[in-house]
Formats: sequence, C-alpha cells, structure tokens
Amino acid sequence: MTRAVDLADVAEFDHEVDVLVVGVGCAGAAAAMEAARAGASVLALERASGPGGSSAQSGGELYLGGGTAVQQACGFEDDADNMFAFLVAALGPHADEEKLRLYCDGSLEHFEWFRSCGITFEGSLYDAPTWMPFTQDGLMWLGENAWPYNEAARPVPRGHRPATSGWAGQTVMTALLATAEAAGVETHVDTRARSLVVDASGRVVGLRATRFGETVHYRARRGVVLATGGFVDNEQMLTDHAPVLLGHGKVSDGLDDGSGIEMASVLGAATRRMGSVEAAYTAVPAMACRGMLVNAHGRRFINEDVYPGLYSHAALHQPGPCWVLMDEAGLESVPEQDAMGVRPTYAAETLAELEAELAMVPGSLEAGVAEYNRHAAGGADPLFHKDPRWLRVLEGPWAAVDPRIGFFAQGSAAPAGTGFQGFTLGGLATTVDGEVRTVGGGLLPGLYAAGRAASGVHGDGYISGTSLGDGTFFGRRAGRRAARG
Amino acid sequence: MTRAVDLADVAEFDHEVDVLVVGVGCAGAAAAMEAARAGASVLALERASGPGGSSAQSGGELYLGGGTAVQQACGFEDDADNMFAFLVAALGPHADEEKLRLYCDGSLEHFEWFRSCGITFEGSLYDAPTWMPFTQDGLMWLGENAWPYNEAARPVPRGHRPATSGWAGQTVMTALLATAEAAGVETHVDTRARSLVVDASGRVVGLRATRFGETVHYRARRGVVLATGGFVDNEQMLTDHAPVLLGHGKVSDGLDDGSGIEMASVLGAATRRMGSVEAAYTAVPAMACRGMLVNAHGRRFINEDVYPGLYSHAALHQPGPCWVLMDEAGLESVPEQDAMGVRPTYAAETLAELEAELAMVPGSLEAGVAEYNRHAAGGADPLFHKDPRWLRVLEGPWAAVDPRIGFFAQGSAAPAGTGFQGFTLGGLATTVDGEVRTVGGGLLPGLYAAGRAASGVHGDGYISGTSLGDGTFFGRRAGRRAARG
Repeated sequence: MTRAVDLADVAEFDHEVDVLVVGVGCAGAAAAMEAARAGASVLALERASGPGGSSAQSGGELYLGGGTAVQQACGFEDDADNMFAFLVAALGPHADEEKLRLYCDGSLEHFEWFRSCGITFEGSLYDAPTWMPFTQDGLMWLGENAWPYNEAARPVPRGHRPATSGWAGQTVMTALLATAEAAGVETHVDTRARSLVVDASGRVVGLRATRFGETVHYRARRGVVLATGGFVDNEQMLTDHAPVLLGHGKVSDGLDDGSGIEMASVLGAATRRMGSVEAAYTAVPAMACRGMLVNAHGRRFINEDVYPGLYSHAALHQPGPCWVLMDEAGLESVPEQDAMGVRPTYAAETLAELEAELAMVPGSLEAGVAEYNRHAAGGADPLFHKDPRWLRVLEGPWAAVDPRIGFFAQGSAAPAGTGFQGFTLGGLATTVDGEVRTVGGGLLPGLYAAGRAASGVHGDGYISGTSLGDGTFFGRRAGRRAARG
Repeated sequence: MTRAVDLADVAEFDHEVDVLVVGVGCAGAAAAMEAARAGASVLALERASGPGGSSAQSGGELYLGGGTAVQQACGFEDDADNMFAFLVAALGPHADEEKLRLYCDGSLEHFEWFRSCGITFEGSLYDAPTWMPFTQDGLMWLGENAWPYNEAARPVPRGHRPATSGWAGQTVMTALLATAEAAGVETHVDTRARSLVVDASGRVVGLRATRFGETVHYRARRGVVLATGGFVDNEQMLTDHAPVLLGHGKVSDGLDDGSGIEMASVLGAATRRMGSVEAAYTAVPAMACRGMLVNAHGRRFINEDVYPGLYSHAALHQPGPCWVLMDEAGLESVPEQDAMGVRPTYAAETLAELEAELAMVPGSLEAGVAEYNRHAAGGADPLFHKDPRWLRVLEGPWAAVDPRIGFFAQGSAAPAGTGFQGFTLGGLATTVDGEVRTVGGGLLPGLYAAGRAASGVHGDGYISGTSLGDGTFFGRRAGRRAARG
C-alpha cells in the first residue's frame, strides 16, 4: 500500500541534493540535465541496473519540425503553425493545445538541443510508408502526406531519426545520458522509489527508496521530478483506467508500472486522460499501402498509406479479424527489406477461395474489391483518399497477410497473441512547466512530472516520435522549473 | 478550490446524525432508506429545491431479472446466471464482474424491494425495438434478443417499467422518496455540499455545506454516503477525463458536476473508468430496424435491431454523417406512435439521387443496398444477424432519416447539434458495499459512494435501466454499510 512519508518520520537523510529526478528514460535525462545546467545539484534515481528505460528500447523517432536543418536539407519548408495544424489533427481529437503550441513553437530550438547533445542526423528522406526505415535516413513521413492530414496542413515530413540503422532509442539515450553526466548529473541505479516525503505544509521535500533491500532517504531541497513512465505494466491500473489494453502486448521495458503516478496520487495529485492509449498493429506498412486493409466483412475502413499507428487504432473498432489483402503483383513489388520477412498467411487463385479460407461471408471480399477496383480504375480513392501512388486495380492471384504479424518480426519484442502492442498515454495532470496539479485545482508544491508519467500533448491520436518528443521537451521545462525551487 | 475541512476547524456542528447522504437521486434515496431501516438516524442533502436529481428526469427503466413476477406473467423463464451472461456481454468488454454477479444474484429481491416501495408493474410485454414504449407495458426488450447477445445468453427481456406512460423516472423517484420519508429519512433541500470534514485520523466525520449563502456544518457519526451523480455537467472534468462527450448533448438535471467525486478525490479517493461514457443517438429504433443504418460510405456497421444505445456507441466510431435508409414500404409500416413524429430528411426516387442529396460518393448506397438485398432475399443477414423479422428486400422510392433526430423530439430535452446525448459512467472506486477506495490501495474510513458518483457495474457498454438499477442496488448496500459505522 503506497503512502506518503511525513518529514517528521525521517530520522536522517542519506543523500541531499537540490533536485531529485526519479526514472532515467528520456524525460528524466532531459530534466536532470537542464536542472544541472540551471545550477542545481542533481541526483537521478533509476530502478533498473542501468539507465535508459523504455526510451532506450524504442525506435528512437523524434517528432520535430518548424524548419530543421534536416528538413531544409531534404528540400522542405516548415513552420510552427503548419506543424501545429498537423499535430492538432493527428494527435486529436482533444489534443492538449496549450502544450502542443509550446511544443511546436519550440521545436526548432529543441532539434538543436538534440544536436548539441551529440545526436547526428543525415540530411536525407525515406520516402515510403513504414514503421521504421532500416536505413540511416534522417527524415521520414509520419502520415503528414496522408489524407485527411494532407488537407489539415501543408504536408511536410517531421519524423527525425538519428543516424542509426534500425532501433535508435539506445542511440538517443546514450547521447542524452552522456550529456547529462557531463552537466554534473549523478545517477543511482538499482534504486527503487517507494514514497514521497512531505513536510508539515504538504510540500514534497524528498523521497524514500529501497536499494537491495535497504531503505535510503533522499532530501530534495528544490524539488522532485517524477519521470517514472506510464502504467502499461500494472494490470490493476490497466483494469481501473485503460482496460482496452488488457490482453494486448506491451511496449515498455517491463517497469512501466505507474509507480510515480501512484506516489503522487496519494498526495492528491490530479490525473488526466488515464484511458488514452497507443495500440499498434504490427502490420507491414509497405504491404498495407500496396493492398487493401479490410475488416472481417471484406471492407476497407481507412486509407492504407496513413501512419500505421492510426490504421491500427481504427482497427480496434472494426469487426475482426482484419487482413491485408494483396494481389501477386503488389506482393512482388514490395522491396525485400521493407517486407521485414513477413509472408502471406493465405494464398488463393480466386477471391471466393480466399473468403472461404478467411471464414468470411461469401461475396464479402468480392464486393469490397469490386468497389476498390472501380475507383482505382478511375485513378482515385474517393472513400478514403489513398495517394494515387499506391492505387492500382488489383487482380488475382490473391494473398491475405495477417496484420498481427509484422514490425516486431525484426524488432526487439515478440508479437503478442492479439498483435496489438500498446502503452498508456494518460498520467499526472501537469502545467506546461511540469508542476503537478491537484484534484482540488491547485499545485502540489515541490513536485514535478514529465514523460509518460504525465499526460502530455496527446488527445485520442498518437504519432511516433511524440513520446520521446514531448518527454524530452517537457522534461527540460520541468527540470528548469524544479531548479528554481 | 475544493479542500477537505479539518474537524479541529469546525467550531460547531449545526446538525448531527448517524448517516449523512449527499444527493437525493435514486442512489441517495435508496441509501438513506436502508440506513434508516437499519436503525440509523439519517439526513439527506439535496442541492436543488426538490429531490429527484437526474433519476427523476430519466425514462425510469429498471434492469431487473432472474425470474421476476413480470417476467413470469409474460411467459419468460430467467435466472441469475442467464442474466449475468447477458450483462457481461452487453455492458462489456470489461464489465465489473464482481459487482455484476451480486447485482444478478440479488435482482429478484431487488425487484420485490421496488414493489415494496409502491412501484407497480403491468404483466405485459412491449415486443419491438424502442427507446421507451409509450404504453404501460411492464416489460421491454433491451437488446437481449439481438445478435450477438442472443448467442451469449438465452434471450429474455429484462427492461422493467413502472405502470406509467412515457417518462417514468419521476414515478420511480416519487415512490422511493415517499418510502424513504416513511422510514424516517429527513431531507434538507437547497443545500449544497462543499467539503468533507475529516478528523485527525483521516476519517470522514461530516460535511460543510452552504444554504442560501450560509455555511452549515453536518456531523455524521457513522458515515457519509456520496450519491452526487456523474460529471457530464463539468466541462473541465470532461476535458480531463472523458473528452469524447465534449460538444455532445447532456443527459442530466444540469447538476451532475462531479462535486462528490472531487470532494472525495482531495482526500485521496481512487477513481475508476473515468473515460467511460454512454453516448446515444436519438434515432427512432422502429425506423432503424425496418431499414439500414449506414455510415457516410453507405455501409452498415451493426444490426439495426440491437439496443439503440449500442448502435449509437458503434456510430461514434464510424465515418459520418450516418443515416437511416428506408424504403417507402418500410416507412409506411412504422406504427404512428413509434415514429415519434420523426419525418425523413431526404426522399428520392433512386439511390443515385439520394447519394447526391447526402453528398455520398456515387455508388456507395447502391453497393450497400445491393449487398443487403442479396442477403435479405436469402432470408438472412450473415454480416450482422439482424432478426429475419425485420429483414426484407428494400425497393425504392427511398428516404433518408437523420439519426440525430428522434427520441428526444417527444422527450424532456431538446436534441443537441451532434444528436448524441451522453453522460458519464466513471467515478469513485468502491467496494461492493460502497466503501470508497484510496489510490494507495486502502479504504477511506467513514466515506461511501453509490450511483454515478461511483464506478458501477459497467464496462465499455451500456444498457438502459442499469443506472437506476445499479444506483439503487448498490445505494442500498452503501446505506446498510454506512449504518453499521
């Protein structure tokens, strides 16, 4: 049972610093670094035996724009308003416009901050739908050129990727951690935060932790920053707040158990959007965009060239199982590397045979394909506006690819039974400076939060790169604010 | 800014009772009555000038089963397991099975409790899809006979209605209030709860309220029961927790502002499923079941004879606007009273004309109708399993009815722009006895909650009658528990 500890009950503090940061993923590293640069003595606690957290295990995409050097090198003009217009749509409905506005206005500077931490980017674009290019290209589309987002804002790619092949989260974290250390941040690993320490006025003044069974007390003179991650690894919290993720795969380092959210909540901290989640099919985008993504009735429900996180989210509300339907010519046109080793689950000469294989009502696929082909023959997709680049009259022979198999075939995690891989987006309610709000409408003095322990820029939608993006952006702000005390 | 009040700061209590109930809708009336019957002195506070709350403005359906006298009179056999099997499916996924099990096991007794309060039921069935029959029939279907629920459990109707024409919420509340008064419950109206009073140990021992600008303190010796309703009338809480309802119509008495949830939360109370909502189209079920409910692409997405709350919920995730497509013969076969005065928005000789009127992609409706008719000609609906009773080959001339216009045309509230009318289902996390859980995993001594201030039996789904149903059922349990102190 989580409780706060009264200052009067702490006989002695083992360590004392200005700013204590809890959790060393991207948000914690950013907060610690900026607090140290602002003149504070900073100690960061990490529960695992080494820092990095879920951030280090991520793809490493950084959602940045406004006219970065990478965008310029690739020939794109961008500005903060255009970036804002896209993100309000793609992270919405109900994105946090106050945080998003700051995030977009500060994005150019934030890009330079990443470079100043030693992260390098190639000035080249990967120009096809994908979860993650296995090239070193520094820029990728994250759905900005797909309908309806191409109408909400001028299409400009903003998926920034460090010059690394494949999973780049470790590259990002290695750079941030080295920079934080150089700024004077000290880190205690194998140290698990248990309870916040509060003084008689209700101010957070420290933390009780355990390390190898020993209790350790930390005094924080100016503030504690919670950067403990989300709660996808906590079944009880999922049941209470985000049951949609129950039974699905988890995108995490296994330690996203909501401990920071809970430690703050017992002090009356407010939470926000606790039911918001990312839930992604692993389906291979290079296949989906060349075929039809259909539900159990053989019907499309979205343009297949949209950011794959969005077609996944849409699939959650479709009668399933869903399938990627392809014809032989389409299948053969998928570049080998982009196919990620994924092979069709079923193949058939006719749609009627395939319907039988997929246990679909006879005629379902035939009706769906007839409609698609009628429109494709006219060179347009009036229902979902897929880019004509990916539009073609489909002919047999046919293949059905299970969309639950894909990305993770080459990735760091095995696919779960459902094929959805998710994490939580809700968390502590914070100001733009990371101050933790209370349910009564005030602020919790001495306490700050950033990253997935907090509710960030997101509404109901999600785009890759916005977690490392808003985690570092608002982590920096929280670190600076905490350093002021 | 909501805060708790320390007992030490209360100079004098104006009133002192064993059990204080806050809010006099169905949950509050049930809790007060049972606490009084258990021997406690009970005072109930109501913010409005008269009791009743949102319950009194509701349709008055009571979801009850297990073999009630009304079910027997109509020739249906039911049992608790069968009722549970239906509700787990219809209120799910993720219904609260612990609460639901008790609710079903206790349903027969709960029906008799309503009768003992003076509510009478006719032993007759209204046998067609509807929001609310404008007859005095005592029993109605709430989707138990519609797919897929007719496969999850043996179809038995459980929508119990007091012998009243039309809106019956006032009938229910009048009976409950009279019975509560006879049991010795005293009520203070025009009294707005502001803060809970806690003693030094953290136990809730009373409440600070205001009445016509005066502060009034109530001492509760054994406990306080919060029955203050949901939070659909609180824009900030909706923004933070259930943004899906922003911009939609509200089903409430205008006072469901989450005040009870907030008063408990400042003391560390846990909440659960704060994003869960009911959101209902007002579309006339008697029309929908005789036609096709289609999305903006002319495609069906659910069986039209399902409980209308469920087709509404499904419509939230469809590309809109949605339409009820009917042919002339279908339109003419709708009984006049069931049509509720609703007329088609558009009429056309051909589907192509109608597609133009509805700004649909040409061919959309034609393809949708062709598929429907192909299946209807075979006497079955293999995609969505609509009852053959409502299945017929549709022929022109055609009509499109706006599903945003309907039920409320004859009801108590005007339709909002979106046509969705909603309320919140999330609230305080409670035990089956209404004890309020804390975020740390304990209980908040002296505090209880029931009704929509608490998270009840619901998962992601909703069925009419379960709000008055679980509000009174768990309200009674909370009242008895509070009386024990």
